[in-house]
Amino acid sequence: MSLQEMCEEREKCSFNTRELTYFLDGGKDKTLELEEMMTSFERDPIFKVPTYDLSWKEQREMSFKRITRMVPFLSLDGEEKFNKRMGLLAIIDGATYTRLGVHFGLFTQTVRALGTPEQFTHWCVDKGGLKCSKFFGCFGMTELTHGSNVAGLQTLATYDEDDGCFLIHTPHLGATKWWIGGAAHSATHCVVYARLIVKGKDYGTKNFVVQLRDVNTHELLPGIAIGDIGKKMGRDGIDNGWIQFTHVRIPRFNMLSKYTSVDDEGNVSKPKFAEQLGYTALVMGRVTMVYDSYTTGKRFITIALRYAAMRRQFGNDGTGKEKKIIDYTHHRRRLFPLLASVFALNASSAEVEAFQKKAQESVLSGDMDKALPNLKDLFALSAGMKAFGTWETCKIIDEGRQSCGGHGYSGYNGFGQGYNDWVVQCTWEGDNNVLSLSCGRALIQNYLALEKGEKLGDYSKYLANYASTFELKTSQLEDIEQIISAWEFISQNLVKKATTSYKNFLKASGNQEDAFEKVSSNRFEIAKIHTKLITLKTFYSRVQKAKAEIKPVLTLLCQLYALSITVENIGQLYSFGVITGSDFTQQVNFKIDEINEKLRPDIVGITDSFNLSDFFIASQIGKKQGGIYEEYFSFVNSQTGKEQIPYYYETVFKPYLHRSLEQNDNED
Amino acid sequence: MSLQEMCEEREKCSFNTRELTYFLDGGKDKTLELEEMMTSFERDPIFKVPTYDLSWKEQREMSFKRITRMVPFLSLDGEEKFNKRMGLLAIIDGATYTRLGVHFGLFTQTVRALGTPEQFTHWCVDKGGLKCSKFFGCFGMTELTHGSNVAGLQTLATYDEDDGCFLIHTPHLGATKWWIGGAAHSATHCVVYARLIVKGKDYGTKNFVVQLRDVNTHELLPGIAIGDIGKKMGRDGIDNGWIQFTHVRIPRFNMLSKYTSVDDEGNVSKPKFAEQLGYTALVMGRVTMVYDSYTTGKRFITIALRYAAMRRQFGNDGTGKEKKIIDYTHHRRRLFPLLASVFALNASSAEVEAFQKKAQESVLSGDMDKALPNLKDLFALSAGMKAFGTWETCKIIDEGRQSCGGHGYSGYNGFGQGYNDWVVQCTWEGDNNVLSLSCGRALIQNYLALEKGEKLGDYSKYLANYASTFELKTSQLEDIEQIISAWEFISQNLVKKATTSYKNFLKASGNQEDAFEKVSSNRFEIAKIHTKLITLKTFYSRVQKAKAEIKPVLTLLCQLYALSITVENIGQLYSFGVITGSDFTQQVNFKIDEINEKLRPDIVGITDSFNLSDFFIASQIGKKQGGIYEEYFSFVNSQTGKEQIPYYYETVFKPYLHRSLEQNDNED
Repeated sequence: MSLQEMCEEREKCSFNTRELTYFLDGGKDKTLELEEMMTSFERDPIFKVPTYDLSWKEQREMSFKRITRMVPFLSLDGEEKFNKRMGLLAIIDGATYTRLGVHFGLFTQTVRALGTPEQFTHWCVDKGGLKCSKFFGCFGMTELTHGSNVAGLQTLATYDEDDGCFLIHTPHLGATKWWIGGAAHSATHCVVYARLIVKGKDYGTKNFVVQLRDVNTHELLPGIAIGDIGKKMGRDGIDNGWIQFTHVRIPRFNMLSKYTSVDDEGNVSKPKFAEQLGYTALVMGRVTMVYDSYTTGKRFITIALRYAAMRRQFGNDGTGKEKKIIDYTHHRRRLFPLLASVFALNASSAEVEAFQKKAQESVLSGDMDKALPNLKDLFALSAGMKAFGTWETCKIIDEGRQSCGGHGYSGYNGFGQGYNDWVVQCTWEGDNNVLSLSCGRALIQNYLALEKGEKLGDYSKYLANYASTFELKTSQLEDIEQIISAWEFISQNLVKKATTSYKNFLKASGNQEDAFEKVSSNRFEIAKIHTKLITLKTFYSRVQKAKAEIKPVLTLLCQLYALSITVENIGQLYSFGVITGSDFTQQVNFKIDEINEKLRPDIVGITDSFNLSDFFIASQIGKKQGGIYEEYFSFVNSQTGKEQIPYYYETVFKPYLHRSLEQNDNED
Repeated sequence: MSLQEMCEEREKCSFNTRELTYFLDGGKDKTLELEEMMTSFERDPIFKVPTYDLSWKEQREMSFKRITRMVPFLSLDGEEKFNKRMGLLAIIDGATYTRLGVHFGLFTQTVRALGTPEQFTHWCVDKGGLKCSKFFGCFGMTELTHGSNVAGLQTLATYDEDDGCFLIHTPHLGATKWWIGGAAHSATHCVVYARLIVKGKDYGTKNFVVQLRDVNTHELLPGIAIGDIGKKMGRDGIDNGWIQFTHVRIPRFNMLSKYTSVDDEGNVSKPKFAEQLGYTALVMGRVTMVYDSYTTGKRFITIALRYAAMRRQFGNDGTGKEKKIIDYTHHRRRLFPLLASVFALNASSAEVEAFQKKAQESVLSGDMDKALPNLKDLFALSAGMKAFGTWETCKIIDEGRQSCGGHGYSGYNGFGQGYNDWVVQCTWEGDNNVLSLSCGRALIQNYLALEKGEKLGDYSKYLANYASTFELKTSQLEDIEQIISAWEFISQNLVKKATTSYKNFLKASGNQEDAFEKVSSNRFEIAKIHTKLITLKTFYSRVQKAKAEIKPVLTLLCQLYALSITVENIGQLYSFGVITGSDFTQQVNFKIDEINEKLRPDIVGITDSFNLSDFFIASQIGKKQGGIYEEYFSFVNSQTGKEQIPYYYETVFKPYLHRSLEQNDNED
């Protein structure tokens, strides 16, 4: 019966779902490539083993088994395709994705980005890094007392001029490397972030390759102490560990020296734009996380929407059955805007990835004066999109789970593990709050630059078109360009206001840090509004280029996204007089309900367009055929024991329930 | 060093923390009682066993062991004190709390509330229910296809006039009892919700006691099929299961018959207010969850704030050290309003508990005309406070975790398990969204009643004082009474507006359900505003009665709560013209920063007032003495293996990393 109901849902769809898949994937060839890779995961027995019952220690073993299945593809696929494969792995096994990503994404990419070609060849080719042959790398950045403040790390790399070596040393407990993925079990080598000390002078944090273990025996090398940091909220497949160094001597060659280098006499040389040059490569981590926000988001919104299209509760659908929960106004209101967000994340991830490439190329071209405005924009944009993108996906998983009621809490429907694995994305590679405040600071700095007549980058130049008034009418609520204009107006005004406040505080205290600190709430707010505005603009401009047959559904989704961010931040529209009167809010809400009604027939079709097989959905209530009860029930029975009497019955249960009720001497 | 820093933090505190504890606990005697109970948990070896490494199956065993340590206290403590003890258990072990709560809170309380005195005596005394002697009860309400819609449950209880028995039957897969805590391992008996069918007539859902297992062998009785529903997001210590009944015959005596009863000839009798009479007792679950929101909230905000008071990152505190993260404007902004929320939850939980007692007494007094307005209010108030209270605690745990950076993600700092255990509170005992919409519907119904000149209950009667305009000035932002008046004005206007819209839709469609459906977004909004307003009023009125020495700090917290809900919903103030201009928002933000600055010296003192020992805090970075690094490091080392080579090294790791790189025949 559920099969038939799902077929009926599909028949309602107004567009060719395959075309929408091509749009989302960036073309038919990309879709076919992804499908082939998805099949290779599904066929691999190691990826079929269920992990629900594994302890955190067993998960680490399983994760390494899966790593062995991934490694060969790096040479088979080539780098670009392998990254797509990694993106698929991220959807089904966040731990393995990260554990391997630390080696391939962090270790080898750092050696490539910050090391000389000889250094890359040495570790990644000759020593076996790229093939994981007698080699596994880890990334030794964070310490027990330092995470966000990388410049404040405490591990020391002291140059010994006598023998031309560095001494890597952990001077106190707080400098213990902490959270290092791969350190506890796997890593043979580590890129260590440590303060370069030459002739008593501190040159700040640089990068050094340190071997941790004997590659033949896997025993720790002298001076290296390592421990496991144990149980985590999620991603237990990663063997995060801590590392302490006691005067570990490494050759001068082991300092990554593409930009900063030390000669044998201890002279330190550093090019003018060393930070910026290193930065564009390292920002890739954030860019990837916007993409992961999209793919993880589409998995969980699919589960929630398919369940909503099959689950009935209360009411009457007109045929005597209870009403589908997807047909409740409020249920749509909870989920459809998040569906629109997934499309917005798709657009912004493609946009920020392209912009990263553009900025990197302009840096490589060497004309830094020309490259700098876009580099600043890349910093603000990638920070904002990483922060608000990963948060949005938290919301999608959490609201998705709640929207599935009790079944959302089952371990077999994906949300719990999915949430636990996901949320660390808000913390690593730049804490979301710290990134948001940085983004806000960059916007104020942009505005100060603008006031001085300087040129702004591609994504902040709209700040220059300052208008003093703007009015949005309820009749314009379907006009995305008007809504974009309204939010540009708000963003301009908010950034201007924040800059004015900053300047006033600066005048009063004379201290820049203090003045920025005082406008913290402004900084957070402008980062949010700016990021959502750019996301909306990006989404809208991509919709314009879509094929005619999918343009209507994309336009509805884009309208919904525009109105969702509008209603979420509606106070700002009122405060700047863009709208007036309590009816406006009411009309926005009714308009959202109206768009949801129009989107309703297409919902299941849209989830199909996301093109994740049941294997990738990995949820008993989110399957394509919609058998939310039969298959769920039979799956639960396949997972759990058939024994009616618990294994602790004789030892714990029976002795208590069948205890004598005669009083012991201590009882009265 | 950290010890000394924490001492310095405590020295800054402006009030006697002990007095604030008494205020929160409701008096010194209550505090002493709680402390004695906390000590008894801490001394019990079974509660000392760490559970980090247990699989979900092992957690079920541990949970039952802990249950055996709790049961004796029911007779030793008496019911009221035992409930307090259960409240403490909820903080440290949500699974065991619920598993035992299903028996004591749901099974026995339902038999008490809906059964006759003879029925209570039979199962709870004679058969051993109250002592868990050869008896463990469970609560068979939800089914695979029905959760929220209790009236739509499908299990059948068909009366057989020939032998005076009921036949309990699961007619199809969807009617399988699902999520039944205790069913999989422990329960001997179950209160089954089933449709009463007499002579072919369906009388709707009633309650029946059904024995599930032989009390001596623990084997399932004939006609009973049970399975384990397996892995969950959290609370794996509960043995949730599914139950299917195949024509299970039970005596007529087993239908709980305090209100509705069937005589031996099949005549069904039911008093006029059966639902309302049964309801006041069953609403206790929600009331308890507001209290649990408070206690769990205070645990996690304590961890986050103590960590913030010890952790340093970036900047300079003036003494050459990095700045404490608690001294960043934005970090305060993230946590201090949540601290204020914990105080608001303390107030609202006491208020709703008292109101439940009052309503129950007025029902028992028999004058239903007098009792009904407050019963309606109790319904709306407990629904709203359960929903927005449990959500607030989700936010406290989530924001608390994020505010601790990477360390928040460690399994040993409490947030992960805490979140996983907590969030089901948003789903069970009434899904939060369903409850919010019901609360909104009740408010519209109240307004309709008001328009007809009917009397409203204690908490909704403010709706009658309708004003057409209200102005709030920036100079009044510290005046809580003015802010309360502003939100009363908004709530009145929103409820009026929702009612008007409802009436218009009703006029157009003639269908009440349809009209209520159309105003869903209004219903959700008025439920939120009404609940937060009542919470603020309650908080404020309790602060007025506090001792002089703690009144200043409580007033700051209450101001902060008032401004937090104001800024979160500021669009409403603009939309009704209560405030104007973008400066207002800016001023509210600056005022919040200012209050946070005033609260700052008292923060650690406030966490002390919550009076949870390190055992109850159960977080390495949240301990009273503040040794966030040393103790955390040594704890991690005590939990994890010292072996440097992973247990799968020989079987998995070495064979792969040391594989031959000679090509296999399939490779080119």
